[in-house]
Amino acid sequence: MKTTMNEKETAAWLQNHDRYLILTHIRPDGDTIGCASALCLALQRIGKTAYVLPNDGITATYAEYLDGMYADSLYQPETIVAVDIADTNLFTENEKSYANHVDLCIDHHESNKRYAKSLCLDDTAAACGEIVYRICLILNVIDARLAEALYVAVSTDTGCFVYSNTTPVTHEIAAELMRYGSFAPRVNKKCFRTKTAKRLRLESCLMSHAHFYQDGKIAISAITLDDMRNIQADERDAEDIAAFLGQIEGVRISATIREMSANHCKVSLRTDDSLNASDVCALYGGGGHPAAAGCEIELAPDDCIQSFYESICSVQAHGE
Amino acid sequence: MKTTMNEKETAAWLQNHDRYLILTHIRPDGDTIGCASALCLALQRIGKTAYVLPNDGITATYAEYLDGMYADSLYQPETIVAVDIADTNLFTENEKSYANHVDLCIDHHESNKRYAKSLCLDDTAAACGEIVYRICLILNVIDARLAEALYVAVSTDTGCFVYSNTTPVTHEIAAELMRYGSFAPRVNKKCFRTKTAKRLRLESCLMSHAHFYQDGKIAISAITLDDMRNIQADERDAEDIAAFLGQIEGVRISATIREMSANHCKVSLRTDDSLNASDVCALYGGGGHPAAAGCEIELAPDDCIQSFYESICSVQAHGE
Repeated sequence: MKTTMNEKETAAWLQNHDRYLILTHIRPDGDTIGCASALCLALQRIGKTAYVLPNDGITATYAEYLDGMYADSLYQPETIVAVDIADTNLFTENEKSYANHVDLCIDHHESNKRYAKSLCLDDTAAACGEIVYRICLILNVIDARLAEALYVAVSTDTGCFVYSNTTPVTHEIAAELMRYGSFAPRVNKKCFRTKTAKRLRLESCLMSHAHFYQDGKIAISAITLDDMRNIQADERDAEDIAAFLGQIEGVRISATIREMSANHCKVSLRTDDSLNASDVCALYGGGGHPAAAGCEIELAPDDCIQSFYESICSVQAHGE
Repeated sequence: MKTTMNEKETAAWLQNHDRYLILTHIRPDGDTIGCASALCLALQRIGKTAYVLPNDGITATYAEYLDGMYADSLYQPETIVAVDIADTNLFTENEKSYANHVDLCIDHHESNKRYAKSLCLDDTAAACGEIVYRICLILNVIDARLAEALYVAVSTDTGCFVYSNTTPVTHEIAAELMRYGSFAPRVNKKCFRTKTAKRLRLESCLMSHAHFYQDGKIAISAITLDDMRNIQADERDAEDIAAFLGQIEGVRISATIREMSANHCKVSLRTDDSLNASDVCALYGGGGHPAAAGCEIELAPDDCIQSFYESICSVQAHGE
């Protein structure tokens, strides 16, 4: 029997259980880590035993928020809680054994698969951190450290309040969190105002390889294996680089090609409402959403640029 | 006799005057333009005649907010109001004749020179827009169009809530403004998520010319006249480019050199608290603030990079 709970019911539920293990999603971002950190601190403060399951994918940016909170291999949890995880296919390898035993999921994804026995979901929240904030407020456990973890959650999922998911409620929660401590300048510098030199060199590559079409409305560019080798860049440096070309003034459709091996490229397509991205990627067996989709193409980068542009044109012609 | 007024007194004062002319500062930013727009709309809504003096420096990004609000050359104002202008040396050429006749200044700069007959100042406000917001709230004139102008003011002066001047009050005001209309995604895209292709190519030049010293703690780079010509970039593309190198992970001291003519460069130095920027620039007859200073050097860019690095080292050695 699966149940849904609001935040007040969830706070009461958390008071009534113990020996918690908290799970985060693969390729963990600031929201899942910030929520895990805040929830772990909250549970400890109300007298519970609570730990977070280690997640190999955690980056240096977020590692500090789980300091001292990791479960060791001998820990015997009784209550499993997933934060910001919409589906069990987003579990890490070491989380998979818990897939059918999640007691509570706290999430903000409309697409949540309802795999947990109890679910606290608010799909109007910009970040799962907004929900965890309200639960922590009810539990009366917020201090500067916990507030910082929630600020990381809320600010990173909104790109520091710039993405269109940001709501008035997001800003109100940020205001309330900032009243607990002066952490925001440090978090903002670290999360939003810092790039690696290698990342900036990859962005330079995208600019130097960029092709523009239709009066600059379409930009297509590639990062080759040689680029990655010359720059000595790794996947962390390339994270979310598909968003780069879309910031160019006038560009409404952008495709970012990554050479994966000889004659094998991955393409990420981002579009505005003038073109359905998944229609284009479907021509290559790929898919996704109307504004963001992907596919793989068995061509070298230069040929891939040409072929993909022609595919965009054919879908455009079809829509007219 | 100069007076200071709080926001309630300022709202009453605005009710008691008429035939307004609103002034903005040179190199107008989102704060001065957003405030001028909002104040002009507010005054018109309470039945006053109000216009904004044209400012030649306005960029395409902000022009729409003053649509239909410009005073023509025949307009005879009775009440002069300056918004976000700390000093009369920040007046544009066509504003200079009003320098000794400003009736009201609304501002958030601690350094305000108190040149106006009446001053409404709050130096805890991240943006002048926060003050104008509270005045408009008292006047009960806010609608979606006015709220958007104030959102532009508040968001641009905080880099979209990322700079360290952002306070809980800033977020609360953003939340309240966003409840008047769904303008934030469009404003954020335009103001914070868009760069010209030429700007991105200038950033690529800075990366390709960059020299790193002291384990990457210091970055120095240059944009040459050839770079500007090859890219066909103008000053708009180069605006605030001195902030670029400082975002590189690990960089604490960055100097951005602009070649102005043969053997003549301008240098912008940004530092953290490990080095006083104005001490270094003073060696070349320049100056500024501890964290941001500038100077001019009669050398070609490559020699300028070398000379400036040696000067940084000499000031570092002095401080030890």
